[in-house]
Amino acid sequence: MRDVRMRGFAERADVEDVERFLAEHTAPLESESVAVLECAGRVLASPIVAAVDVPGFDRSAMDGYAVRGADTFGASPYDPIRLELVGESLPGRPCAATVGPNQTVRITTGAPIPAGADAVAMAEVCEEDDGTVEVRDAVAPKKNVGTVGEDIRKGDALLAPGRVLRPQDAALLASLGLAGVPCVRTPRVRLVVTGDELLPAGRAPEGVQIVDSNSVMLRALVARDGGTLLPFEILPDRPERIREALAADDADLLLVSGGSSVGQEDHAPRLLAELGRLDFHGVAMRPASPTGLGRIGSRFVFLLPGNPVSCLCAYEFFAGPTLRGLGGRARAWPHRRLKCPLARKISSVLGRTDYVRVALENGRAVPLATSGASILSSTVRADGFVIVPRDAEGHPEWAEVEVHLYDDEPAAHDGAKTPLPGSGPVGGVQ
Amino acid sequence: MRDVRMRGFAERADVEDVERFLAEHTAPLESESVAVLECAGRVLASPIVAAVDVPGFDRSAMDGYAVRGADTFGASPYDPIRLELVGESLPGRPCAATVGPNQTVRITTGAPIPAGADAVAMAEVCEEDDGTVEVRDAVAPKKNVGTVGEDIRKGDALLAPGRVLRPQDAALLASLGLAGVPCVRTPRVRLVVTGDELLPAGRAPEGVQIVDSNSVMLRALVARDGGTLLPFEILPDRPERIREALAADDADLLLVSGGSSVGQEDHAPRLLAELGRLDFHGVAMRPASPTGLGRIGSRFVFLLPGNPVSCLCAYEFFAGPTLRGLGGRARAWPHRRLKCPLARKISSVLGRTDYVRVALENGRAVPLATSGASILSSTVRADGFVIVPRDAEGHPEWAEVEVHLYDDEPAAHDGAKTPLPGSGPVGGVQ
Repeated sequence: MRDVRMRGFAERADVEDVERFLAEHTAPLESESVAVLECAGRVLASPIVAAVDVPGFDRSAMDGYAVRGADTFGASPYDPIRLELVGESLPGRPCAATVGPNQTVRITTGAPIPAGADAVAMAEVCEEDDGTVEVRDAVAPKKNVGTVGEDIRKGDALLAPGRVLRPQDAALLASLGLAGVPCVRTPRVRLVVTGDELLPAGRAPEGVQIVDSNSVMLRALVARDGGTLLPFEILPDRPERIREALAADDADLLLVSGGSSVGQEDHAPRLLAELGRLDFHGVAMRPASPTGLGRIGSRFVFLLPGNPVSCLCAYEFFAGPTLRGLGGRARAWPHRRLKCPLARKISSVLGRTDYVRVALENGRAVPLATSGASILSSTVRADGFVIVPRDAEGHPEWAEVEVHLYDDEPAAHDGAKTPLPGSGPVGGVQ
Repeated sequence: MRDVRMRGFAERADVEDVERFLAEHTAPLESESVAVLECAGRVLASPIVAAVDVPGFDRSAMDGYAVRGADTFGASPYDPIRLELVGESLPGRPCAATVGPNQTVRITTGAPIPAGADAVAMAEVCEEDDGTVEVRDAVAPKKNVGTVGEDIRKGDALLAPGRVLRPQDAALLASLGLAGVPCVRTPRVRLVVTGDELLPAGRAPEGVQIVDSNSVMLRALVARDGGTLLPFEILPDRPERIREALAADDADLLLVSGGSSVGQEDHAPRLLAELGRLDFHGVAMRPASPTGLGRIGSRFVFLLPGNPVSCLCAYEFFAGPTLRGLGGRARAWPHRRLKCPLARKISSVLGRTDYVRVALENGRAVPLATSGASILSSTVRADGFVIVPRDAEGHPEWAEVEVHLYDDEPAAHDGAKTPLPGSGPVGGVQ
């Protein structure tokens, strides 16, 4: 193992090779049982097959009157039929009454159909008066009746593993009577933030000390990607403290921010190589070229550069997909995208992958002039980013590019955000 | 106030009129201070102007050696220059050394530039040996130096109200030294779930009792839309209990599920009219036509039908936009969308707005045959929905429709989901 400290990288890995390596070495974590009330948004781990019929009894789909459909044949507003009211069926209670010929039972949506009845006349076509009900429309048998299993039939294959559970999926699972839902375990993430210059978020910058902003950003990205963060504190640039944090086995994935490049104080790569494997260190990309990654046991360790834009970029290219993969989610970029022409050319070099922040102006993507890896504000001013792949020297002006949008939601107010082009493949961001 | 119980609606409001009414009566809630570590995803309530420069001192952007740029002019691999190493500058500590002519200081990324130096030579072009440093490349003054305010300048207007704070926005706010961030208060939502037939989620359905699935779905939808749910319990269909729940003033928005239509046990509309205003009851839409809504004081109250598909539909059309609006978010549909041709015609009637579940098959939208409002499983089988506006009688086969997609993320596994069309405005779901 060559010590790169103060020497630089002999060669840098291709982004695609690192991505392929990570995809090949990531598999979803094991299953855990999640309370049905909490399962929406989680990833299903096992197939769901219905163990019961829903509903489990014939019920009314309307408020009205349970009838024998044949009794109502010929009824019309001009020639209503009259039925004897013999009871009431309310939701949640078995109905004691039986509907005989020319009889009816008042019934509420969801209440069980009483014995003898086979249809429900809607309240709107009925008039109740002193023990009789006038029905002004014919009702065919089975009309307005929800029959056993009409929603879910016992034995139905309902949901496949890998599904990100929708609100309505959670509701379906509840209606089947499930208490716990088998979901892929939420990946646990440990942040290892090092830097003698760092003050914790919430403090004001002071002298030559700056505020640790990377952990604030990473915390939000981990939440977006379905991970849960273990408690953390900022560590001093001391090898023994960093070693201890790397060796702790309570996380599935470690994000090391700072101390990961080729400086004198960059201990993390050497420690990672000692404790496990440093699979890559140095990637042919801009920003984030000092990115490293490896594994200690089954834990992934990402060495993210300390510069905030590099940290964001390295997380998005490598750590994010891995975290999503561990959680059983799609590795693909999670951003909404749109295609639009470039307002100015983007220069890159062959063999390097670039992450270029752009603003949207008048339907075109404007590469931001300030592209330094330390300029966090550029990712705040930008609307998104364009990726220049390694086999391109850049993109000319007017080239159609795909912009990954930072914002997931449309803006609340007109003018709160650069307007998006009104035509073209705006999918979802109109 | 006409009592609609067991009589039906005399006339139904247009969806557009209800939407307009809600938009006109919704304004974002007041501001509250949110810890900077928790502010990502929240909505900014006040403009943010930088009170400090970031960085507040000149710092190195590279690991290497701080130099006087002019000393290195003419240096090359064939003709390196030699400098005397007079100290080291590390992050977070003021640097005691001063760089005089032909001197240098070892420096780490983020460390302060020592007095006298004006540039940093990258470690990769230097060789340190026994108190001297060989520099093999010329370094222009200011090179690899992050100057005061290069990221953020004191006085810069950084973020406007209404912004949904990105991970990097939160990081920026932390780097400015903010402890609390002014955000729109999270709307509080009370679920009022009534029904004598309902068992709490987690229980198995039994006899004529079914499991309350609507609260499971609504809980997830409220979370998606940035609301927070107050504790709830299922209420019996007793007017005094429902009145008590409606009268409690701890929520900004109430979602009443069940007991809101025209049945004998549908107390909620009358109680809402008594306690406040029942602005609408009955909407020209399918499903969810028994939807009602009104206000008690400043609280919005939505009467959602008990049928799960109707409940989902009424929430999405009316309650969701209102909740998002209270939270300062965009009222617009939050779903990703795609345009594709219809595989079969959709029939509707003029004057009614329809919410039609569709599956995507071979790049076309297939309306699901089972469209009953009680068939929750249809919203699980569907990939999304198509809205048929009131001025259309439906859509013919092959008409291009806009599908609102239920899933926000691309599927994790090939084949876990119907493939989406590879071309056209797929924005974000490729």
